Amino acid sequence: MPIKAAVMGLGNIGRYAIEALEIQPDFTCVGVIRRKESLGKDAHDLRGVPEYASLADLEAVSGKPDVVLLCAPSRKIPEVAGDLLGKGYNTVDSFDIHDRIVETIGLLEAQAVKGKAVAITAAGWDPGTDSVMRALFEAMAPVGVTFTNFGRGRSMGHSVAARAIAGVADATSITIPLGGGRHSRLVYVVLEEGATFEAVKAAIQADPYFSHDPLDVRQVTKDELPRVADASHGVLMERVGASGLTANQHFTFDMRIDNPALTAQVLVSSARAAVRLAQSGRSGAYTLIDVPPVLLLPGERIDNIGRLV
Amino acid sequence: MPIKAAVMGLGNIGRYAIEALEIQPDFTCVGVIRRKESLGKDAHDLRGVPEYASLADLEAVSGKPDVVLLCAPSRKIPEVAGDLLGKGYNTVDSFDIHDRIVETIGLLEAQAVKGKAVAITAAGWDPGTDSVMRALFEAMAPVGVTFTNFGRGRSMGHSVAARAIAGVADATSITIPLGGGRHSRLVYVVLEEGATFEAVKAAIQADPYFSHDPLDVRQVTKDELPRVADASHGVLMERVGASGLTANQHFTFDMRIDNPALTAQVLVSSARAAVRLAQSGRSGAYTLIDVPPVLLLPGERIDNIGRLV
Repeated sequence: MPIKAAVMGLGNIGRYAIEALEIQPDFTCVGVIRRKESLGKDAHDLRGVPEYASLADLEAVSGKPDVVLLCAPSRKIPEVAGDLLGKGYNTVDSFDIHDRIVETIGLLEAQAVKGKAVAITAAGWDPGTDSVMRALFEAMAPVGVTFTNFGRGRSMGHSVAARAIAGVADATSITIPLGGGRHSRLVYVVLEEGATFEAVKAAIQADPYFSHDPLDVRQVTKDELPRVADASHGVLMERVGASGLTANQHFTFDMRIDNPALTAQVLVSSARAAVRLAQSGRSGAYTLIDVPPVLLLPGERIDNIGRLV
Repeated sequence: MPIKAAVMGLGNIGRYAIEALEIQPDFTCVGVIRRKESLGKDAHDLRGVPEYASLADLEAVSGKPDVVLLCAPSRKIPEVAGDLLGKGYNTVDSFDIHDRIVETIGLLEAQAVKGKAVAITAAGWDPGTDSVMRALFEAMAPVGVTFTNFGRGRSMGHSVAARAIAGVADATSITIPLGGGRHSRLVYVVLEEGATFEAVKAAIQADPYFSHDPLDVRQVTKDELPRVADASHGVLMERVGASGLTANQHFTFDMRIDNPALTAQVLVSSARAAVRLAQSGRSGAYTLIDVPPVLLLPGERIDNIGRLV
């Protein structure tokens, strides 16, 4: 029996989640849940998957899904996930507000226990698979320093922050690694009518999202913006440290990826793990560092051990 | 209460395990178990840790250890681990005979369940942490190819195989990566009296350990051999593949390390995980891809999530 997955949201991540579910041997995507006013739009993005205005509508056709992939904006995740978990749905999300993860786990844990369900939260690539790398690097060399160098690539969080500034009609923010886990920001802005570039630049410079890093703000037209806003991203994670008393241990993880495609794939792999954890009688809120890696992969555990260990 | 760890064997790995235990905030090394005839030798390697000829002797002084780190040769691991697990001791080992791991898990699982104990087997760096990387890479890009390129560094398995060949007094085998997960072997040999280099070279060439790869055999003297037999090693793991339907996803893990120091550190981190699994009521035989990564690290789970996720 394939795992029945529902996708909530048809934004950047949701579209790629549908594609990722399509190639898995053990999943079926039973439907996408969208705002009522969006139904019928962008039918090509659905790739033949049925769309519904609510989980209840979906269930009336396909029964209860084994897991719901939450492809909504991060700020909405705690509320949406909490509600579903309390009602007994397993959920996965790629919540990415690092400094609110611990508080979010507390909230989801209570609801998950109440609903006897499993959440895997912060299950994208950072937080997510990068978090697993950071944990492994420390397990291999407990004394040392890890640098997580992001980019070059578009930061969704910084782009949203720039768009919120007065006088900005649209913006995209590119993260450029400077080494040592530090970054500069290259922000392309489209001005609103009547706004001046110097005032907008000063406002971005003063915003707490940008004030700590070197900043380069450039003005572009509405037509030019899409030409610089692609989904390329990456990370260079470096640790030099000591295993026991032996120094000069070097670890590097370098990744160059399409950002939403990877996020969606990690969500789907995590959805598999969430269902397996629930099937083994577990409930609660997990992050990827709480999950046995073998649960992320299709197939039998012992076959994966024979192949990968 | 610190975790009470016993180290079985004072070879290459055992010595580094003592060092690795020393720097952990949550371990105490209660003793080393050695062959009776070795007691009293190489006292500096013990770093003040008491030595015993048997686990019973150790227990008479320190009580039952929470975990036993098996630092014996791989071929002895299944028997030694099985025996201890059946008697209720948690064990960790760095068993590295890849094509016998599945069978070894079956054997250890039966004994671990009988003794209500936990084994983490194949817990070095390959198999071990590299296995976790391979699993994560597949979770991120299910379609694609992973190459594990070892070296440049000394292969213990190939060195042992070369030493077993008639006419070889001593040998060390260096693994050189050729790309695409393929390797050449550079074997330094010290000849026994009366042996001819050409005959030894032909015998190495014919050995199944060496017959599949490009081979370079060089003769050295007994005094020269130690100068080429250091513990440097590394791996370059590469995967190019697709996340969902999106190709051109690139993942690289590059590690340059002191081999036994890393192996021993991973063993110690795994020992912590084994004890935690046992304390949570689990029993059985695990590999590192079966273990939640957060269990490998000292400290509270939620603190590590806040710091690393």
